[in-house]
Amino acid sequence: MIEPRTLKGFRDFLPAAMIPRERLIDTARRVYRSYGFAPIDTPALEYTEILLGKGGAETDKQMFRFHDSGGRDVAMRFDLTVPLARFVAQHAAELGMPFKRYHIATVWRGENTQRGRYREFMQCDFDTIGTRSIASDIETTLVVHELFLAIGFTDFEIHINNRKVLTGLLDKLGLGDKATLVLRALDKLAKIGAAKVGEEIVATTGATSAQVDAVLGFATLAGTNDAILDGVAKAVAGNARGEEGAADLRAVLSACAAAGVPADRLKLDVAIARGLDYYTGTIYETFLTKLSSIGSVCSGGRYDNLAGLYTKQELPGVGASLGLDRLLTAMEELGMLPKAATPAEALVAYFDAERLHDYLALAALVRKSGIGVEVYPEPKKLGQQLKYADHRGFRVALIAGSNELAAGQCQVKDLKSGTSEAVALADVPAAIARLLAEG
Amino acid sequence: MIEPRTLKGFRDFLPAAMIPRERLIDTARRVYRSYGFAPIDTPALEYTEILLGKGGAETDKQMFRFHDSGGRDVAMRFDLTVPLARFVAQHAAELGMPFKRYHIATVWRGENTQRGRYREFMQCDFDTIGTRSIASDIETTLVVHELFLAIGFTDFEIHINNRKVLTGLLDKLGLGDKATLVLRALDKLAKIGAAKVGEEIVATTGATSAQVDAVLGFATLAGTNDAILDGVAKAVAGNARGEEGAADLRAVLSACAAAGVPADRLKLDVAIARGLDYYTGTIYETFLTKLSSIGSVCSGGRYDNLAGLYTKQELPGVGASLGLDRLLTAMEELGMLPKAATPAEALVAYFDAERLHDYLALAALVRKSGIGVEVYPEPKKLGQQLKYADHRGFRVALIAGSNELAAGQCQVKDLKSGTSEAVALADVPAAIARLLAEG
Repeated sequence: MIEPRTLKGFRDFLPAAMIPRERLIDTARRVYRSYGFAPIDTPALEYTEILLGKGGAETDKQMFRFHDSGGRDVAMRFDLTVPLARFVAQHAAELGMPFKRYHIATVWRGENTQRGRYREFMQCDFDTIGTRSIASDIETTLVVHELFLAIGFTDFEIHINNRKVLTGLLDKLGLGDKATLVLRALDKLAKIGAAKVGEEIVATTGATSAQVDAVLGFATLAGTNDAILDGVAKAVAGNARGEEGAADLRAVLSACAAAGVPADRLKLDVAIARGLDYYTGTIYETFLTKLSSIGSVCSGGRYDNLAGLYTKQELPGVGASLGLDRLLTAMEELGMLPKAATPAEALVAYFDAERLHDYLALAALVRKSGIGVEVYPEPKKLGQQLKYADHRGFRVALIAGSNELAAGQCQVKDLKSGTSEAVALADVPAAIARLLAEG
Repeated sequence: MIEPRTLKGFRDFLPAAMIPRERLIDTARRVYRSYGFAPIDTPALEYTEILLGKGGAETDKQMFRFHDSGGRDVAMRFDLTVPLARFVAQHAAELGMPFKRYHIATVWRGENTQRGRYREFMQCDFDTIGTRSIASDIETTLVVHELFLAIGFTDFEIHINNRKVLTGLLDKLGLGDKATLVLRALDKLAKIGAAKVGEEIVATTGATSAQVDAVLGFATLAGTNDAILDGVAKAVAGNARGEEGAADLRAVLSACAAAGVPADRLKLDVAIARGLDYYTGTIYETFLTKLSSIGSVCSGGRYDNLAGLYTKQELPGVGASLGLDRLLTAMEELGMLPKAATPAEALVAYFDAERLHDYLALAALVRKSGIGVEVYPEPKKLGQQLKYADHRGFRVALIAGSNELAAGQCQVKDLKSGTSEAVALADVPAAIARLLAEG
């Protein structure tokens, strides 16, 4: 006999975990689609040369890479961005630009599982390719905002920044060629404080104290978005790129305000950088106010050239990625996930062995009203069936013996309160709907 | 520069192909869930020992198998049945029985692509585990019936059989130990005719002509379901297993009739066998009447013991699998697939460069009514935006310059007829809904 087990770092999803996962994916799809993002899919396996070197040395090491039976060097995708780049380069003519896509799919990385990471997880990305228009940065922000509302959050903050403002400031200060070192130091601002960050900048770049003061003054700008934006504009004044970044930030903030995004949900945060190379314009991170320790649950930004490794066509774009697994963990901690292990609301007890056709008809009647119904498959003792209903998390049980059926009735049992009422069969859907409305 | 390409046998799904694929998956999920089937997922990769030898020698050869960086012998799943067996064996206590699950996921097989097959495809399975009750076989039939109606088919036939009737007949005839050879010959009935099948049975089993006549008479039973069922009952009379099979068929047919499944959609077909070993009771195949040449698009059956390789617990079950890719091919041939490459219905033209906030507000208004809307991201020439709308397959374009907006209006352009009408902004959702209702 073979021991049934999963690989290290891989997970089974049982119904109680899979039901909220599917709901979250559904919500993301619904929101993405409502803005005209179209679904795509790409293969799990790609030629290794397509994936290699796109995610950095660590990602290369973590790839599930092998030779297939035809001797091809292949690897499992480790994200959805590299496949998107390959996809857009390959199909650009057919796709046409601008191109808006979402892609919700599994990716694989041989992560160190001791850090509580999984080797198989799902990504949930949306991007607008083929335009530099700030309208797409604005829309990306609106999508993220609507997404979190649709999931059921009200306490969240979208942090927004623009890579051009810091780059512009550093250019202006004559530190443009030291940007990476400055960013690396600034990344530690929250952890070690401004004084130590300043010391590190001096140590690594040889900056003057006036330069350091300007950088730190910028990085610690605080107050309302308008106040920070004014500070940013002042800091970058005279540098074309920096001014462009400030104007872009202003455009996003004002459009989102006009669209009704509350001021406390969109926060200008000049401290976020999101990696050093990839993003070139707007940057996003999203935090749950009640659980900010979990980190950003939806991140992204604007990039200048998506697919430069595969095509000469310059493909700028902007997008973000919902951190599905992290978000589900957060929702569980916040008590936002239901516990049911069934997607159906009602269980029809198989009470009288001779009455299966009646139970099937009752189930069909209720199902027609849009309520999910399971018929217990065996005429076992009622107690056992109710125990099953409880274990699965059904909200309602429908119980009828031949007497009830002869009278055209059925017992509708509220499994939360334990109470039952006799209901005419035709009225059963409405009776269940009332209980469901109660919660 | 790296050539952007996909591996042989692997496919990209562009939006026009992915949109109907997602819709089909949605429909299947909705139907499965309405009967209380719960979603699960399992890893793409399993220990090779879990998968090996479960799908036969050819499947073993076709596996994508390799050693991971930890030296583990791993392979990508080639179906969803073997992972289900492993899953149920591993989690039986937590799951509880009966257990009803659906699983919609990608599987991989290194098929010979010259036969027009893909190496990556999706399976879409539902099963009821842990009960021998015929109620579950009945429900499986009802689910398949409802599934095809929900997808949009009316012309389809579910073929049903029960392995026990032929096995019972062969036992009764004293050919029980030759069942495999007889089945193999009967499989060719449609192709080579009864006479040649008879010759093969004689040649391979040494059966007498009376035995062959009995087998062929049984396999060619025709007429109404009732007539065939009577013939079956007569043929197996006196053999317990055969009688059980006939009773099971009768129970399924009568329950489905009582549930309103039209007689011409459920056909008792004693010729189907579906492989030689796995299934032990009811068997299903589903054919599209207008495209029967494509073969069965939904198949399945009852099995005695799902997970005997991983657990001593006997786990009987019944289920079926929707042939997603085959069905999509059929739907395309039958002209059932829309051509749109966008999930949104309306495109808001970005007409006046200064009016982005108004366009975003208009889009939000329409979106609130449940209609998907894309805002073109750049204030380009209207002709270019309309060409884009046409290329993507939007149904409606919303066009407003500052004059229209000042008058609180917008042009609603029907992209099918080419006509436009000026509509008050508040009435735009209703105007679009009217056009959508037209088709």
